[in-house]
Amino acid sequence: MIIAYDGSKYKGWQKQKENDLTIQGKIEAVLSKMAGEAIQLVGCGRTDSGVHAENYIANFHTKCSFSTDAMLDYLYEYLPEDIVVKSIEDVAERFHARYNVKSKTYVYRLNTNKFRDVFNRKYSYHLADKLNLTEMRKASEVLIGSHDFQSFVNSRNSDKSTVRTINYLNINEKDGLVEIEVNGNGFLWNMVRVIVGTLLEVGKGNLKPTDIEKILDEKKRWEAGPLAQAKGLVLRDVQY
Amino acid sequence: MIIAYDGSKYKGWQKQKENDLTIQGKIEAVLSKMAGEAIQLVGCGRTDSGVHAENYIANFHTKCSFSTDAMLDYLYEYLPEDIVVKSIEDVAERFHARYNVKSKTYVYRLNTNKFRDVFNRKYSYHLADKLNLTEMRKASEVLIGSHDFQSFVNSRNSDKSTVRTINYLNINEKDGLVEIEVNGNGFLWNMVRVIVGTLLEVGKGNLKPTDIEKILDEKKRWEAGPLAQAKGLVLRDVQY
Repeated sequence: MIIAYDGSKYKGWQKQKENDLTIQGKIEAVLSKMAGEAIQLVGCGRTDSGVHAENYIANFHTKCSFSTDAMLDYLYEYLPEDIVVKSIEDVAERFHARYNVKSKTYVYRLNTNKFRDVFNRKYSYHLADKLNLTEMRKASEVLIGSHDFQSFVNSRNSDKSTVRTINYLNINEKDGLVEIEVNGNGFLWNMVRVIVGTLLEVGKGNLKPTDIEKILDEKKRWEAGPLAQAKGLVLRDVQY
Repeated sequence: MIIAYDGSKYKGWQKQKENDLTIQGKIEAVLSKMAGEAIQLVGCGRTDSGVHAENYIANFHTKCSFSTDAMLDYLYEYLPEDIVVKSIEDVAERFHARYNVKSKTYVYRLNTNKFRDVFNRKYSYHLADKLNLTEMRKASEVLIGSHDFQSFVNSRNSDKSTVRTINYLNINEKDGLVEIEVNGNGFLWNMVRVIVGTLLEVGKGNLKPTDIEKILDEKKRWEAGPLAQAKGLVLRDVQY
């Protein structure tokens, strides 16, 4: 299934305690009621509290005899207005929405105009600073490719590899609205938001593009920039 | 002053009873506190409950010694996040935001895709019908120019003229999102939304473009189409 959601009022994708408001929890509840059996969703990854998605991918197994079209209509009717399942299709039994991911594309939206945009205020991070986009683009080039992103992750100690590959990172601006689009083979916890927070430090002149290599090498979270606000981040696409 | 607002939770522009949530009421309260005197805003017109504005114009008179920049900062700090005063400039003493209007531009947004757009759900009217835009454009051509729009107004009986001039009416579509942009020398109560509701009847095949002339001639509200939802409407610009 392909899902769009406005994450503003949710505690992220992943189901937590029974009464927490999560995207997974909301969809599983409706699906399970429809199917008459407990349905568990396999999502393409976690999205944090407040993060949005245009095309989140999840899969599930069911004995329910509904057609995928009938499921789609049922979900559209019973899900809240900030979650829409846009399509459902049958996949191979072995398909796994997380393990099979080849890459993901995230977009981070910044409003650099003097005042907030009342219509986009929930989907962009407003900062009145003028950003040096040329310097930010230079810094982003250092991040492209395979690196150990230990410095860019808010994580508990773990044995798992923190090496990831960024395939591209584009920074576009129009009328003061800056979009940072990043595609990679996988992202660690908070990695996109720390990358954005670090690029913002470069854009404001607090870091130089040449500092990025040092930050990667140090493998210390505190060397990188702060965590950028969740509401500016949207999962755009997942590639399999 | 030029004002942007997300009208979703307001009972329109115009101040009503003391405790009603209106745009005018919100701004007047902050301005009056700032100035230390009761400030009354003269707005460019009423916008209905739930209607939005990108560039609403209002003026006021004050003895307050604040610079316009200082006023702007004060308003930005104390207004709620869905109302932003974008600019303030000194004007001639005789300027009147309503009487001096030459024309106004409204935009109505329709989402004709199968499912609602979670990110635009508060700023567009979702209808899953496929619309015949060619027929809608033909119908809109009949409306351009000076006409008695009595059939397109939800109003109490009144001696005032219901003749208005529509300068242009454009219908554009991209990815299933239809924008109807209309500019005229003035609009009667609900007129834009009734025009949109009528064009939608044409788009669905319930009316023909040739019916529009008859509707104008009949001067009866019930001949025209239904009132389109408020949330799809935004006041884009006002010309003086």
